[in-house]
Amino acid sequence: MSFKSDIEIAREARKKPIQEIGAKLGIPSESLLPYGHDKAKVGQDFIESLKDREDGKLILVTAINPTPAGEGKTTTTVGLGDGLNRIGKKAAICIREASLGPCFGMKGGAAGGGYAQVVPMEEMNLHFTGDFHAVTSAHNLLSALIDNHIYWGNELGIDERRVTWRRVVDMNDRALRDMVTSLGGVANGFPRQTGFDITVASEVMACLCLANDLADLQKRLGDIIVAYTRTREPIYARDLKADGAMTVLLKDAMQPNLVQTLENNPAFVHGGPFANIAHGCNSVIATKTALKLADYVVTEAGFGADLGAEKFMNIKCRKAGIAPDVVVIVATIRALKMNGGVAKKDLGSEDVAAVRSGCPNLGRHIANVKSFGVPVVVAINHFVSDTAAEVAAVEAFVEVQGAEAILCRHWELGSEGTEKLATRVAQIADSGLSQFAPLYYDEMPLFEKIETIAKRIYHANEVLADKKIRDQLRQWEEQGYGHLPVCMAKTQYSFSTDPNLRGAPTGHGVPIREVRLSAGAGFIVVICGEIMTMPGLPRTPAAEAIMLNEAGEVEGLF
Amino acid sequence: MSFKSDIEIAREARKKPIQEIGAKLGIPSESLLPYGHDKAKVGQDFIESLKDREDGKLILVTAINPTPAGEGKTTTTVGLGDGLNRIGKKAAICIREASLGPCFGMKGGAAGGGYAQVVPMEEMNLHFTGDFHAVTSAHNLLSALIDNHIYWGNELGIDERRVTWRRVVDMNDRALRDMVTSLGGVANGFPRQTGFDITVASEVMACLCLANDLADLQKRLGDIIVAYTRTREPIYARDLKADGAMTVLLKDAMQPNLVQTLENNPAFVHGGPFANIAHGCNSVIATKTALKLADYVVTEAGFGADLGAEKFMNIKCRKAGIAPDVVVIVATIRALKMNGGVAKKDLGSEDVAAVRSGCPNLGRHIANVKSFGVPVVVAINHFVSDTAAEVAAVEAFVEVQGAEAILCRHWELGSEGTEKLATRVAQIADSGLSQFAPLYYDEMPLFEKIETIAKRIYHANEVLADKKIRDQLRQWEEQGYGHLPVCMAKTQYSFSTDPNLRGAPTGHGVPIREVRLSAGAGFIVVICGEIMTMPGLPRTPAAEAIMLNEAGEVEGLF
Repeated sequence: MSFKSDIEIAREARKKPIQEIGAKLGIPSESLLPYGHDKAKVGQDFIESLKDREDGKLILVTAINPTPAGEGKTTTTVGLGDGLNRIGKKAAICIREASLGPCFGMKGGAAGGGYAQVVPMEEMNLHFTGDFHAVTSAHNLLSALIDNHIYWGNELGIDERRVTWRRVVDMNDRALRDMVTSLGGVANGFPRQTGFDITVASEVMACLCLANDLADLQKRLGDIIVAYTRTREPIYARDLKADGAMTVLLKDAMQPNLVQTLENNPAFVHGGPFANIAHGCNSVIATKTALKLADYVVTEAGFGADLGAEKFMNIKCRKAGIAPDVVVIVATIRALKMNGGVAKKDLGSEDVAAVRSGCPNLGRHIANVKSFGVPVVVAINHFVSDTAAEVAAVEAFVEVQGAEAILCRHWELGSEGTEKLATRVAQIADSGLSQFAPLYYDEMPLFEKIETIAKRIYHANEVLADKKIRDQLRQWEEQGYGHLPVCMAKTQYSFSTDPNLRGAPTGHGVPIREVRLSAGAGFIVVICGEIMTMPGLPRTPAAEAIMLNEAGEVEGLF
Repeated sequence: MSFKSDIEIAREARKKPIQEIGAKLGIPSESLLPYGHDKAKVGQDFIESLKDREDGKLILVTAINPTPAGEGKTTTTVGLGDGLNRIGKKAAICIREASLGPCFGMKGGAAGGGYAQVVPMEEMNLHFTGDFHAVTSAHNLLSALIDNHIYWGNELGIDERRVTWRRVVDMNDRALRDMVTSLGGVANGFPRQTGFDITVASEVMACLCLANDLADLQKRLGDIIVAYTRTREPIYARDLKADGAMTVLLKDAMQPNLVQTLENNPAFVHGGPFANIAHGCNSVIATKTALKLADYVVTEAGFGADLGAEKFMNIKCRKAGIAPDVVVIVATIRALKMNGGVAKKDLGSEDVAAVRSGCPNLGRHIANVKSFGVPVVVAINHFVSDTAAEVAAVEAFVEVQGAEAILCRHWELGSEGTEKLATRVAQIADSGLSQFAPLYYDEMPLFEKIETIAKRIYHANEVLADKKIRDQLRQWEEQGYGHLPVCMAKTQYSFSTDPNLRGAPTGHGVPIREVRLSAGAGFIVVICGEIMTMPGLPRTPAAEAIMLNEAGEVEGLF
């Protein structure tokens, strides 16, 4: 059996003019700012005109802990959106934008796969509508203003050793992680040690993705802490009068992007904060706009449910005042086998026992999501090598957990493969069963918030943090940041902080290495283990094979 | 008398949908890739379909040496384009895109002024269609690939001390001029000293602006020299297999942008290479496309005619195989007075003698341009404080030089103010009088090329260069780069290398500090005096006042 590659399928797409896609949601053509013929931004004025409308139903797609086998979370998000449209529902999907830098390293983007894709695929993995470039510019303008302020006399008394704001570039470039700038003498300022992160790790990205409108965005940008004085008083972006110009740079980027699935259904692709030091969801404004325009909105969150769904619920939903009506947890037989201890090379043959031993990972995610008061459906994203016995084992397991598992074939068949899932998801969403509440209340002390997540979501025994970290958390509470949610930065491969510990570990401790205040985004980042805010390129970067072919098409991007 | 500001006038513009503007030039709607409703890129396929058409007439707008009084070169380019349309000619203009970084420092952009402007003004000074971001990405991808190659074993034997390729950012940020990167240990590579330039100074920008098509672009990008080995052998971008991916990143940026003037006439705004270390003209592809679509194309070149027109003729025209039919030299009474020794604060009162003593600057530019075999018209860009006697003095002076001066009031009146100029320019362009030839032939030795420009254009006595520089030029000749044109980097304020020496100095020497090979762009940069490839921000950056007003409009950008 031979299959077409994702890029081959994407190139065969019969795209409709973006105005026709907008029309499906009732967006008038003049409120769509086109970027080429197949991409558009939804105008700010139009979005504001929607505010009295009722919201549609919100469906979150999340997954078991990711493995090298792949789960197909975005693919399932796309497939489910198409499936809902197929059964006659007015549905839209909301996903994140892809980062440019990593495309030149090892991986392509995140536009789904097989017959469940969003197009135009190449452009979504290149410059798209320029949102990430706008974030980069706004971030680096602030950086330049900080050093410029110090250069011209440092009236605010910034301690050059305590500038926490770095620079960003949308490129995998390890050489920029750690550097000394302002060398070369008086005209170039005061030398200091700093570095670059990748653009998606910028707090500006997190602000953009959590802001409700431009005014909210400007407030958040102004709230960003960029440095401290010698007496440890925070310096805000607002103190440098940077927030206005940053907002101007982000004015277009704040408008959600509309594209389409292979089946010509509307897809909002907007924002892309890191899923570790940020919350890993598409923008609030895109999700809220979609909820006003569609009866069903399918969205997703980064990594597995322990990180992605947790942050979606505790950060995004809390801040945006939205709530999921149903959660879909994606699993694949292959990934369950890996969670059950099978090596990637051995995934080809039937192994029902391994599937069964991987199932507790899925089981814990089901229970965790339910603990937010939201009903769960498991989508088994079918792979050609899956056997009936393996699928049956998962179905049986899930039933015992008080949920149901539905086999989906969207990768192979498009919406035809998710009819059953779509029907069931719509039923549950319409039922009003969901009684969503975040896991912790705003006023809970910060350390207790961390413990709550560690114990109830990760099933850890304890949180390990030295005095310095506990003191820091208490200091922020005194400074008025105690009401913020916490944003966990932990390995996505395990419920624990050990990436090799698959399945459903218990009894582990969660060591906290560092805590950071993102006062603009509005959360406390809790770093458990190594996190990488500037990736490097591999020995043979994908860039070497990326080129235009004779027909002018992009080769090698996937 | 009170006048509206540029931004007020721009906001009152009655813009037409960009498809209507394209239709004036016969561009079908499906060949225009819209960016919003008022900007579009002209599709690659359509451009290729034009190649057998005849070219229209090419009109270059240049100026006397710039002074703080301002000359209005872009304003005159726009005004002349509108004037040609007004008298019934099918005309288009071609200008450069503005750089984002400097807008947050001291100056706004370069979209004309008064009633001779190109719109949408704000967007042209912000992200526009993302071309500069694409240049930044392509440049920095190459940078990352260099350090990554060294990191993974340095198979090509790059001498880390001889990496000439830096990084770029579209921001005024002096802290990035000089730095040590790759600090922090083994995982971050080998520490080395490097820095960032502003994006417009990137050789990638020069390549984009000189390339005839995507294949030519890829060849140029591959030809870029990024480093040398210990034995001083050049390492090319091609050796790192970077050229394909860089071309992919620039694929959309290669397509010219179409916008409109206040009078709804077509304006191509594309590319923006630095006018010192590069050639300072809009893209070849935009100019050539405009020549296929319009009967008259008005374009401009950076700085005064000694730099801008010289490079336009010797670099752009030579490489693109195009030739100007007539050159318009813009002068203002105020700038002539400053060239005649008047201080800026004293420009308000009539001073015919000062105008007369400034005229030799204009006279020399006229003679220089004529030496290329191209007829000249002087446009006096009228300012409200100019008196009739002052204008008459210039007219009389220009007549003696065998040219004619025409008073223009486009800033105040739009095309009505350039009817006379347009009529005369069209006559001369149609006359076939122009007998264009570049100043030097390809095979002339490099040092002689420099001497030719210094003596014939700057009227210097001699070129001063030490043995190291002469040896370097000879070495490049031996390596096969002797046929390249030279790109002079000199102060724009004087014919000499002393910015304070206004008027028409003689007897000066031109000291060469440094020479650089831009093998991708295809020229040798000759640096005479200080050049700044990364500007800084002023004490009170414009950014502090840039913000969105209540109506959501951008304030403070101008």
